[in-house]
Amino acid sequence: MRIILCGFGIVGQSLVKLLDSRAEDLYAKYGIKPRIVGVFDSGGSATDPSGLDREKLIYVKKKTKSVKDYSKSKNKASGLEIIQNVDADVLIEATTSNYKDAEPGMAHIINAMKRGMHVISVNKGPLALAFPSLMELATYNHVLLRFSGTVGGGTPILNYAKNSLQGERITSFAGILNGTTNYILTNMANGMSFDVALKDAKSKGYVEADESLDLDGLDAAAKLVILANWVMDMKVTLPDIQCTGIRKVDFEDIKKAAKKNCAVKLVASCNKDLIVSPREISLDDPLCVNGTLNAIAFTSEHSGTQTIIGRGAGGMETASSILRDLLDIRKEISRS
Amino acid sequence: MRIILCGFGIVGQSLVKLLDSRAEDLYAKYGIKPRIVGVFDSGGSATDPSGLDREKLIYVKKKTKSVKDYSKSKNKASGLEIIQNVDADVLIEATTSNYKDAEPGMAHIINAMKRGMHVISVNKGPLALAFPSLMELATYNHVLLRFSGTVGGGTPILNYAKNSLQGERITSFAGILNGTTNYILTNMANGMSFDVALKDAKSKGYVEADESLDLDGLDAAAKLVILANWVMDMKVTLPDIQCTGIRKVDFEDIKKAAKKNCAVKLVASCNKDLIVSPREISLDDPLCVNGTLNAIAFTSEHSGTQTIIGRGAGGMETASSILRDLLDIRKEISRS
Repeated sequence: MRIILCGFGIVGQSLVKLLDSRAEDLYAKYGIKPRIVGVFDSGGSATDPSGLDREKLIYVKKKTKSVKDYSKSKNKASGLEIIQNVDADVLIEATTSNYKDAEPGMAHIINAMKRGMHVISVNKGPLALAFPSLMELATYNHVLLRFSGTVGGGTPILNYAKNSLQGERITSFAGILNGTTNYILTNMANGMSFDVALKDAKSKGYVEADESLDLDGLDAAAKLVILANWVMDMKVTLPDIQCTGIRKVDFEDIKKAAKKNCAVKLVASCNKDLIVSPREISLDDPLCVNGTLNAIAFTSEHSGTQTIIGRGAGGMETASSILRDLLDIRKEISRS
Repeated sequence: MRIILCGFGIVGQSLVKLLDSRAEDLYAKYGIKPRIVGVFDSGGSATDPSGLDREKLIYVKKKTKSVKDYSKSKNKASGLEIIQNVDADVLIEATTSNYKDAEPGMAHIINAMKRGMHVISVNKGPLALAFPSLMELATYNHVLLRFSGTVGGGTPILNYAKNSLQGERITSFAGILNGTTNYILTNMANGMSFDVALKDAKSKGYVEADESLDLDGLDAAAKLVILANWVMDMKVTLPDIQCTGIRKVDFEDIKKAAKKNCAVKLVASCNKDLIVSPREISLDDPLCVNGTLNAIAFTSEHSGTQTIIGRGAGGMETASSILRDLLDIRKEISRS
């Protein structure tokens, strides 16, 4: 299985380490030998049709900050050039999310699919802005598009709703899908002011470079788009979400909620309307998790409400979701 | 798809209602037309190779307490006779669990598999006493054995661990798998004595006819056997579980736990050893659910700890799990 890896940040590096540590096991148990034939970051690229050396990749990135130094010639090829010129089976898109035009991820995904590659995206941007059309493009090109890592990190929320609950009808769902805002709101419930709580979250590395993605609810809204399309078969994109962030939540709101045995949480919900907004949740509700935890509650027609709780982020967690998608793609291919 | 239904209690009747209400949808979406060609209860049987009338079955059961009155001839054939003489694709075993010899469920399952039928069991007894050998027998006879409803009721815990987490290694798990004892312990934490809490649970219909199955941890232990075999590939049966129930939990234990911000819960865990016993869990742990809720936390190598919470019982919930197994069997058959 030949892989092109777009972006070589924490997730990309974790994936390379994971593939390395699991190499024998993956071959023995699933018959797959993933080979990374191309990788690029903002500095440049590295390619090798017979598979790049995983340890060397990690070493070079650590030492020089870019994979371009993998070979002496210092490969300056851009991502799109790699996608055009290197043959591969699967493209893994792990560049940074943006919700304005979703580039460069959008172009990577579209060009890879046109070249017949299956795509695994942990980048939420392209899916948030164009889920329905990307799915159509995948179908048209007879390739698979997977994105387990975009919602819940290592917690397989999307798979649970789609496969574990097959035959059941999910009627609505609500989730705490952004760990950063949940961490801030948890600290506010414990008495911190918004500004101090935000500063603390920043110092721990929980806040995105563009803090608006967390604080204004964009990250949660992007995940809601993906869930609504995948789980509820809706055809929606980011502008369809009514989105309010947590900047206006103040001490009064928190105190008012506490009096009712509730906490204020940033909730993304799908129940006719698609809404992201701060809401009061009862402390007795399993959905009411603290710290950086994520949680989602699916309500189904016959099996009641089911809540899944897990860490929503982390390099290795997201890498493990990519591995699941790889195995899923492998399984689907071998069937057809 | 021709089905023989063993036992026609709450679960069996819920299933018949569910198949009735979903008939069109199941055909349109999955191409299956489930036909119940045989059903029996302690009073007798009803059979029809072209499919029994679902509404009439429910009506007769309600009116006369047994399906034997479905036909004028009052069919007295036993379960085993039905299994021997009626041709079917799938046997659904829904008679009462017992952990002494697991009969009559055990004989139903074994004979059905020998006749080439796939089996869906919501009866935990046979699996608790003979999981490894029943799995071997299924393989030998080229049939599928499914049992989603035995753990978590309508909450697809087994599927989650096996499929949603594929490619991931689960290193340990711990769960609150018996709603009845959780309901009693929750009430004790709120100040009720054990005896009053037990009486209350009985009045609500939460306690098994043989109360020992709940109170002495047998039900939780049976579920632990199934999880250990299915999720961890262990080959164990009920005698391999170290099992302690909740009869000895007293007010002192509860108070002591509360002082440490904990609650006493009946926990079934797999971490080298397989243990069911009352244990203190932190109130902040997502696993610490109240009332009749079930919860299970899987700890995996790369994706951290993930907790699933849902209702663990209920006729319609369990029926929905049977439907999932039917769809799963259908999918597997169409593949081979």
